[in-house]
Amino acid sequence: MTIRNTDLTACLDRLRTTLGERLATGDSVREQHGKDWSRLPPALPDAVVFAESEDDVCRVLEACHEFGVPIVAHGNQSSLEGHILAIRGGIALNLTRMNQVLAVNEHDFDAVVQPGVTRKQLNQHLRDKGLFFAIDPGADATIGGMASTRASGTNAVRYGTMRETVTAARVVLPGGRVTRVGSRARKSSSGYDLVRLFVGSEGTLGIFTELTVRLHPIPEAVCVGACPFGAAASAIASVVDAMHMGLDVARIEFMDSLSIRMANSYSGLGLPVAPTLFVEFVGAPDHVDQQARAFGEIVAMHGALDFAWSRDPAERSRLWQARHESLYATTAWKPGAEVWRTDVCVPISRLADSIAAAQADIEGSGIDGKILGHVGDGNFHVAYLVDPKMESQRDAVRAMIARLNHQAIANGGTVSGEQGIGIAKLPYLLEEHGEMALEAMHLIKRALDPRGIMNPGKMGSEPSSLPKQATQS
Amino acid sequence: MTIRNTDLTACLDRLRTTLGERLATGDSVREQHGKDWSRLPPALPDAVVFAESEDDVCRVLEACHEFGVPIVAHGNQSSLEGHILAIRGGIALNLTRMNQVLAVNEHDFDAVVQPGVTRKQLNQHLRDKGLFFAIDPGADATIGGMASTRASGTNAVRYGTMRETVTAARVVLPGGRVTRVGSRARKSSSGYDLVRLFVGSEGTLGIFTELTVRLHPIPEAVCVGACPFGAAASAIASVVDAMHMGLDVARIEFMDSLSIRMANSYSGLGLPVAPTLFVEFVGAPDHVDQQARAFGEIVAMHGALDFAWSRDPAERSRLWQARHESLYATTAWKPGAEVWRTDVCVPISRLADSIAAAQADIEGSGIDGKILGHVGDGNFHVAYLVDPKMESQRDAVRAMIARLNHQAIANGGTVSGEQGIGIAKLPYLLEEHGEMALEAMHLIKRALDPRGIMNPGKMGSEPSSLPKQATQS
Repeated sequence: MTIRNTDLTACLDRLRTTLGERLATGDSVREQHGKDWSRLPPALPDAVVFAESEDDVCRVLEACHEFGVPIVAHGNQSSLEGHILAIRGGIALNLTRMNQVLAVNEHDFDAVVQPGVTRKQLNQHLRDKGLFFAIDPGADATIGGMASTRASGTNAVRYGTMRETVTAARVVLPGGRVTRVGSRARKSSSGYDLVRLFVGSEGTLGIFTELTVRLHPIPEAVCVGACPFGAAASAIASVVDAMHMGLDVARIEFMDSLSIRMANSYSGLGLPVAPTLFVEFVGAPDHVDQQARAFGEIVAMHGALDFAWSRDPAERSRLWQARHESLYATTAWKPGAEVWRTDVCVPISRLADSIAAAQADIEGSGIDGKILGHVGDGNFHVAYLVDPKMESQRDAVRAMIARLNHQAIANGGTVSGEQGIGIAKLPYLLEEHGEMALEAMHLIKRALDPRGIMNPGKMGSEPSSLPKQATQS
Repeated sequence: MTIRNTDLTACLDRLRTTLGERLATGDSVREQHGKDWSRLPPALPDAVVFAESEDDVCRVLEACHEFGVPIVAHGNQSSLEGHILAIRGGIALNLTRMNQVLAVNEHDFDAVVQPGVTRKQLNQHLRDKGLFFAIDPGADATIGGMASTRASGTNAVRYGTMRETVTAARVVLPGGRVTRVGSRARKSSSGYDLVRLFVGSEGTLGIFTELTVRLHPIPEAVCVGACPFGAAASAIASVVDAMHMGLDVARIEFMDSLSIRMANSYSGLGLPVAPTLFVEFVGAPDHVDQQARAFGEIVAMHGALDFAWSRDPAERSRLWQARHESLYATTAWKPGAEVWRTDVCVPISRLADSIAAAQADIEGSGIDGKILGHVGDGNFHVAYLVDPKMESQRDAVRAMIARLNHQAIANGGTVSGEQGIGIAKLPYLLEEHGEMALEAMHLIKRALDPRGIMNPGKMGSEPSSLPKQATQS
């Protein structure tokens, strides 16, 4: 699909009369909306709209539908797979001005927010209420963006992902009509699960203008521990045992030696350089202590070098800093290096083998690569550091990533645990889901977006038009 | 849509050649497939197929698609809202012979089953593995049926519903092609969430031929308690407090005085006749004891008459017997009476008012009605007992049910917490979801089932064709 210039012009003319200065076409603003946090080359929209209300969003979707103009929603632009690149041009719909927390229902543990509210903003808003919003990707992403990519983070092992977190929403559909989906009930068997259909659909079916999200009570006590090992395999074996024993973990994260070195360098933490597990237990003080002791017994059996744990909030912040700043620490490690990231998730029984294979691959390549992950879920990331002047490194990393993704699929897992598909993962969709599932996704896409204006060329595209070779990663 | 007889005949002729005696058209077998556990009048299919393999299912969906013949999947026929009634005739596809447990992955806490496996059968299969399948509706339903209605039960407050339980599936689509959906990873942000779309779609989009379901470790200790109150309001206030304090409840169930009387009569339990909470905590022995003590403090503040709790398995079975046999106890209470059931779910902040309103309505009517529910989720049921000879009672109950459902919607809840829509709840879909959401559901239905053969006239029907008046319950 290409937009005829006359259609684009007519569309922008229409919108300019209603939106005024909220419609921008200058080069710099377009450049600001042509790039995300991935390594992918920029792809600029033709115009940018700064929506301030649901009505603005309706006007934009109405005009784009009429004139066949592509539309890509933007939050804080921290997507990692090229989700927001305007590869077919059109309008970037910036939703960050729609950033009001509309309601907090303390007794029902939910909040109603506009899509531009960020996760940190919401938690700041909740600080006196004894509640918190649990989903914590690396970036301070918007809740609309997190819903669109079905994001998660370190808390998913206990609190789930955006799939379990969004209970209801308002969504503007192509053509500009608004639908409510879901309810505030904790469960329902009424109707097709439209909430879960829109969550993770990456702006290809509609635009969130309001989201109801679940909150959780701030636990009475939190116990955090760090546990270095002589080898990564021992750390992973400990995770598998802890999960099998049904330990009540709230977070369990792995960082390999290079990840720890980067964290020490970036955040000045002085952690022992070794493959390390970070673990957190929440609940009543007795309970968290008991769980920590049980965990201590497991890691001792696996030869942990140490296991220090504490209920001190300052120590908790210090330890999680290492994990949360990881994205930035990687980028800062070798200025100028390209960071190539992966995001596989496998059944926990395959986690040890999967991480060992990735580790062996890195060691054999001579290229810097760090491994870390939300290992309680079987989700881990490799970040490879590529010297941009060495094409051979690119080829080697490309091959390593392809192997990693093929293995994840062969193990019954997925090529995207939490970052979504965007453009970069499109080449793996067929292998992971099979042709019939892609066909079903496309039928749904075409039913809801018959003109194909919603984030076109991405998820939901006709299977035959998807890239077949995993040349991007 | 009506089937022309020639098309039906041609379809059955085609199928007879491949299915032989697995295709039946006798009156008694058709009668066995024309009724569920609802009060709705029978609606018989024209033929019944007893599928023994995915290939059988494919052949049926291929032929039905070609000839435009309706198809309704059957498990153990325990649906409560008319889901399986063949209101447009066609073929009943009985899946109970596909009842193999195909795999148990102990280390990943999941199992792969055919759709005709029942929940009790699966738990029997798992008995030596330290794992269990948590979803427990009243009936010994099939897992295919439970997935189709997004069923839950007493464990949902801790383990979720079928929405969280099904992680992957094989689904036969109209036309007879098979798609895989989902993966064995605990989380994924890869592609539209087709698993959640098929779960709860009541056989209107495709037929499950294989399901991967999450299992959970059997807890180290289980503590169960029963707690009678002087008034229902005090019981519900205790539930709300326990949830707000973040108590780690595994089950928390409410039964009113009439429910207890029925249970005593049916199961000979000798429980004190009073509004009663049943509560369960699971985990390490110290933890469950500590939670039970904390719960004891809450209910004491609300004037509980007693709170006896125990870690004795026999006592646990005895107490839960009251809850699990409730469906049968109601039917047995007044032989010949019609049982009219409801299934609303509201935000927990509205639970006390909702139950009080239902109770006042019952008291004002002079009709027997019992209230019980999975109150930790805000889900409760009223079962009214109607004398079939008194039309005025039917009118009164119809009005009470309508008020209950309207209030649930007005409170931000749903008219179906766990039983689905079937035929009986169709009149409430528009009010609960709004016209645009119903339109979106219909667009999806039409995209995946263009000939409208999958359980036609039910969920996913064109909004204009849905019953507008809530005349059924």
